[in-house]
Amino acid sequence: MSKGLTVNSYFDDQVKSIALENQEGVSTVGVMMVGDYEFGTSKREYITVVSGELTVKLPDEDDWRTFSKGESFMVEANQTFSLQVKQATAYLCRYE
Amino acid sequence: MSKGLTVNSYFDDQVKSIALENQEGVSTVGVMMVGDYEFGTSKREYITVVSGELTVKLPDEDDWRTFSKGESFMVEANQTFSLQVKQATAYLCRYE
Repeated sequence: MSKGLTVNSYFDDQVKSIALENQEGVSTVGVMMVGDYEFGTSKREYITVVSGELTVKLPDEDDWRTFSKGESFMVEANQTFSLQVKQATAYLCRYE
Repeated sequence: MSKGLTVNSYFDDQVKSIALENQEGVSTVGVMMVGDYEFGTSKREYITVVSGELTVKLPDEDDWRTFSKGESFMVEANQTFSLQVKQATAYLCRYE
């Protein structure tokens, strides 16, 4: 039996994610509770909303944009971006 | 601050999920590692593949069917169904 799945927790357990690696690459799926967050990237990230919605201020953008279920956005490596989460939201984050 | 997110673990940590409730209803997002599993339902479940693929033998069906990224299947309450997971797979499970 392989070792079990890894869960990461951020922002006092308001954000949790589970890591996976498959034919699509290396990803995490997670949930964010309602709140405002600032994240930093170490790799390029492709984030897709799985359930709920994310309101995002991307690096070098002045405006907030809302991404709904099924929609994606990309953040380059070594960037900081801000998120407003208005309902609990599940996401997939794929790393490149 | 609200209480943190709940993570559930099954099959010796080969399957883990995070619970959420939002405008879409009550769901979990999770990951299944490679393996064969049998699950039971207590409510009707709508399962969507988020990354990877799930090969499923639904209750009262004789054949296995494979669901890829973005595809969904439904299992009624109080049923048992079998899954073959051939690559690590992320899923969304919505309960009714």
